[in-house]
Amino acid sequence: MSVTDELLANNAEYAAGFSGPLPLPPAKRVAVVACMDARINVYGVLGLNEGEAHVIRNAGGVITEDEIRSLAISQRLLGTEEIILIHHTDCGMLTFTDDEFKKSIQEEVGVKPAWAAEAFTDLDTDVRQSLARIRTSAFIPRKDSVRGFVFDVATGRLNEVA
Amino acid sequence: MSVTDELLANNAEYAAGFSGPLPLPPAKRVAVVACMDARINVYGVLGLNEGEAHVIRNAGGVITEDEIRSLAISQRLLGTEEIILIHHTDCGMLTFTDDEFKKSIQEEVGVKPAWAAEAFTDLDTDVRQSLARIRTSAFIPRKDSVRGFVFDVATGRLNEVA
Repeated sequence: MSVTDELLANNAEYAAGFSGPLPLPPAKRVAVVACMDARINVYGVLGLNEGEAHVIRNAGGVITEDEIRSLAISQRLLGTEEIILIHHTDCGMLTFTDDEFKKSIQEEVGVKPAWAAEAFTDLDTDVRQSLARIRTSAFIPRKDSVRGFVFDVATGRLNEVA
Repeated sequence: MSVTDELLANNAEYAAGFSGPLPLPPAKRVAVVACMDARINVYGVLGLNEGEAHVIRNAGGVITEDEIRSLAISQRLLGTEEIILIHHTDCGMLTFTDDEFKKSIQEEVGVKPAWAAEAFTDLDTDVRQSLARIRTSAFIPRKDSVRGFVFDVATGRLNEVA
């Protein structure tokens, strides 16, 4: 049995205790952008319930064009007003460089990605970089509450980046 | 008190019961790509625990360049082998068109996004489109288990797209 099949069996249990549907717009009017890291259970970390917040995730929790797209849709069409950005300690993005990652792909498959891998060397600096990308975007209308945090994978705690 | 402050208070409670750190690579070697929709609690829907799976999310759960980047890092650097793609019923992406969304932004702020908004008109067709983008990518090495689903926000159940 594949892991996918195992998780589908879990879903049958989840559905048995499920009651829906909830409304489409997020009840707490907040969008969270977080790293894809397996140790960050966003609903748990923030005490969220189903229906309350948009959750956007990628490698690093960085802001690229696709996160601007998602945030623009979140705010403009679905009414969110606050943004919470989450990076975390022991992040995989701290363990390589864009150049070496892209070179390894080029050597293996013959094609070098035209995109940035978005690796970084300092957590707080990269949180600030992602916040700056949000603040300078023309496409995101509400910027009164855009705050960045580092999740500590040892303690479960969010520490704000000033 | 802002919603962000309220969620930070929840985090203090979460941290009080937290035990870590877990290892960095996802224990179940799976990456999930899902829509950012507030009603999809990915850990709940799939019965995942902290440390088991990468979770990548955006508006629609579509595959754009940034999801290819995240999946390439997930498989090449952190050992995941299976991919689960999740769209859902009552999706906001069914309620507008790229052209009208981008025109409304252009009229309001004077700049038209150079990116696609990735709106779609049929759920199953868009799941297949996202699966095709994964299967045709040179940068994602493991494609033996790439499966797509529609989450039903009324029942909590995942239905596979053939």
